Amino acid sequence: MAGKTDLAATLTLDDINRAAKVLDGAVVRTPCDRSFTLSHDLGLEIWLKFENLQFTSSYKERGALVRLSALSASERKRGVIAMSAGNHAQGVSYHAGRLGIPATIVMPEGTPAVKAENTKRWGATVILEGKTLEDAARFAHAYGEERGLVFVHPFDDPLVIAGQGTVALEMLDAVPDLDTLIVPVGGGGLIAGMAVAAKALKPGIEVIGVEAALYPSMYNLVKGTALPVRGDTLAEGIAVAEPGTIAAGIIERLVDDIVLVSETDLERATFALLMIEKTVVEGAGAAGLAAVMADRSRWRGRKAGLVLTGGNIDPRLLASVLTRELAREGRLSRLTIDIPDRPGELSRVSAVLGQAGANIVEVYHQRVFTDLPARGTELNLVIETRDRSHLEAVLAQLEAKGYRVVVKTGQAGG
Amino acid sequence: MAGKTDLAATLTLDDINRAAKVLDGAVVRTPCDRSFTLSHDLGLEIWLKFENLQFTSSYKERGALVRLSALSASERKRGVIAMSAGNHAQGVSYHAGRLGIPATIVMPEGTPAVKAENTKRWGATVILEGKTLEDAARFAHAYGEERGLVFVHPFDDPLVIAGQGTVALEMLDAVPDLDTLIVPVGGGGLIAGMAVAAKALKPGIEVIGVEAALYPSMYNLVKGTALPVRGDTLAEGIAVAEPGTIAAGIIERLVDDIVLVSETDLERATFALLMIEKTVVEGAGAAGLAAVMADRSRWRGRKAGLVLTGGNIDPRLLASVLTRELAREGRLSRLTIDIPDRPGELSRVSAVLGQAGANIVEVYHQRVFTDLPARGTELNLVIETRDRSHLEAVLAQLEAKGYRVVVKTGQAGG
Repeated sequence: MAGKTDLAATLTLDDINRAAKVLDGAVVRTPCDRSFTLSHDLGLEIWLKFENLQFTSSYKERGALVRLSALSASERKRGVIAMSAGNHAQGVSYHAGRLGIPATIVMPEGTPAVKAENTKRWGATVILEGKTLEDAARFAHAYGEERGLVFVHPFDDPLVIAGQGTVALEMLDAVPDLDTLIVPVGGGGLIAGMAVAAKALKPGIEVIGVEAALYPSMYNLVKGTALPVRGDTLAEGIAVAEPGTIAAGIIERLVDDIVLVSETDLERATFALLMIEKTVVEGAGAAGLAAVMADRSRWRGRKAGLVLTGGNIDPRLLASVLTRELAREGRLSRLTIDIPDRPGELSRVSAVLGQAGANIVEVYHQRVFTDLPARGTELNLVIETRDRSHLEAVLAQLEAKGYRVVVKTGQAGG
Repeated sequence: MAGKTDLAATLTLDDINRAAKVLDGAVVRTPCDRSFTLSHDLGLEIWLKFENLQFTSSYKERGALVRLSALSASERKRGVIAMSAGNHAQGVSYHAGRLGIPATIVMPEGTPAVKAENTKRWGATVILEGKTLEDAARFAHAYGEERGLVFVHPFDDPLVIAGQGTVALEMLDAVPDLDTLIVPVGGGGLIAGMAVAAKALKPGIEVIGVEAALYPSMYNLVKGTALPVRGDTLAEGIAVAEPGTIAAGIIERLVDDIVLVSETDLERATFALLMIEKTVVEGAGAAGLAAVMADRSRWRGRKAGLVLTGGNIDPRLLASVLTRELAREGRLSRLTIDIPDRPGELSRVSAVLGQAGANIVEVYHQRVFTDLPARGTELNLVIETRDRSHLEAVLAQLEAKGYRVVVKTGQAGG
């Protein structure tokens, strides 16, 4: 068997063209549209590839289907196994179901029932096993080996990488004069395949990877750094501790740079895509735009293609992205107001707020634990204002009435 | 001048074809795509027309541009005026700006700054005037008459109706065998234009209007009822107290039925479009899907075209749609737990919840106002669970430890 480094060296545009033939008609040829508003606001030409509009809402179907299509007749009959609680699970189970290939998907214990349901929907068997992703992967390998099931890896497989690379073919076909591709990096399969295709078609194109600053695993591997890799990121889809070795080989050779984005960048980009493009992306899917928003001068004047890799975001996370951005914009604010502990004081504060046009969303009136002298008390409010200047006018009116107010705009609703 | 009933009688497919020529290349020919998942789940074939992907995120551009294109040279020079704090404002200002026609948009006082900004962006002058929409409209008429500005009505104008009707042309061109069109109704311009086009092309097609149950104004007009018209609806875009008389004439003649949808229907449909279609619609834009979800048997087996009329929803409203649906699904719940008033009781409850895998989102510990005897106290919590069966397991464990728990699943996060 060839070593993984050899595999990295041998993947070519031909492999990706072959993968494109396999995918033709079986996955969605997603739109690649110019965003006029984001382009105007950010000072470059932005083209978005809407892989969140794939049937299972991510590009993962591409690699999964190319891998499934390469199975021998007997392998098809025995079936496949994969480990994933996310987009790869849905990609494998949907196409396996479509092709009549038995699929077993292992998810860690405690995976939300909705994810297991979405995967069972296409006929896959779901096994909940293992406390962590690593445990679940170990179990899946052992279970699959016992039963002769082919393990479908989410990224560390040349066929999977070739499948993901077709995203670049479609983007350059739609917009041949793109000069930059900005691509989220988790395991690295997507950017590796895209880089092979794009650099072969257009050697001068720049291919840039984006990782969450909390999970700079490929960055560490390629740049030789040892940044910590841990934490809760909005970009769960690219929170991969051990990136692919085949992908890493390709990335070292063909990818121009990897940049890191903060959680705030990811939240703002997710919000912008929702509110401007009217499209739902998961945190990982917003990583490309996050990189552009975080460092505008770097990309000024470019003609950049960004892959919106997926749209599977938990509704509670999405709600939190919305309210946190409102807090940053000064539209939702948490106020702490010191008031004398006497009858009618709450109603007086409410009247000031009402006259100023602020909407009271939450009240917490705290009498017991406070730093104030015995006759004082603290009122905690979440208020909604039209915008930051309206907030400032409201605060001025409270202060004009003699109230001492502390504001936390960054915290409300988070 | 012809009466409005005459205008209703004379609008024909030719007018709508002429409008389509005006719009060609100047507005987006939005996608009309089949939703496989919604079709499968709801038992009919659903095609969605994504008017939320117009440049200003609503179909209103169509009518506005047709009206603007009919101005004489001297009218163009003097300019136009419109009254709207919503989609019509953006439609008029964007195309007036593009065509170099001065535009004045009147919005009621207290309109969020972001709406005025979005409108000024295209070069329009925004005047904030009037406490209500009615006051603002009166002001706009008077202001425009004084200055010789043409008033661009959002719906009660045959040119505007002809422009909106082009939506049906595009849908029937994309999917000729649609047998049903389901269309949100506010002022009635969209459905009137669409009905003229669709019934001329395909007399057997059924055209159904949808209004928010809180604003059944066209329903009252057409059916001769007197249902109350008032309240806060998610579907602000179709919350019109006085629908158009031209549209009403056409609707009486050509529209097969008008159905009403509840706020819960609207919220669930908005949620489904967000989570399944990955697309952001405003409440009015979800009205068609709400009608289907509310009465599945009525539409079973149909091949229905639904217009997603717009995508301009306030982020806070959208966040609330998300959290309210999570509450309905049993994923966010507000619990009231009676606990004895003694040290360590809060930590004991937290431990039970933690072991059961529930996430505590909010705590409110209430000691003073409670119905319990003097030694008891009330603990209010918002908890997050994986799904309804997980919630039930969590409640069972609390009850096994002797706690009396009251749950409000429908209220949390609202």
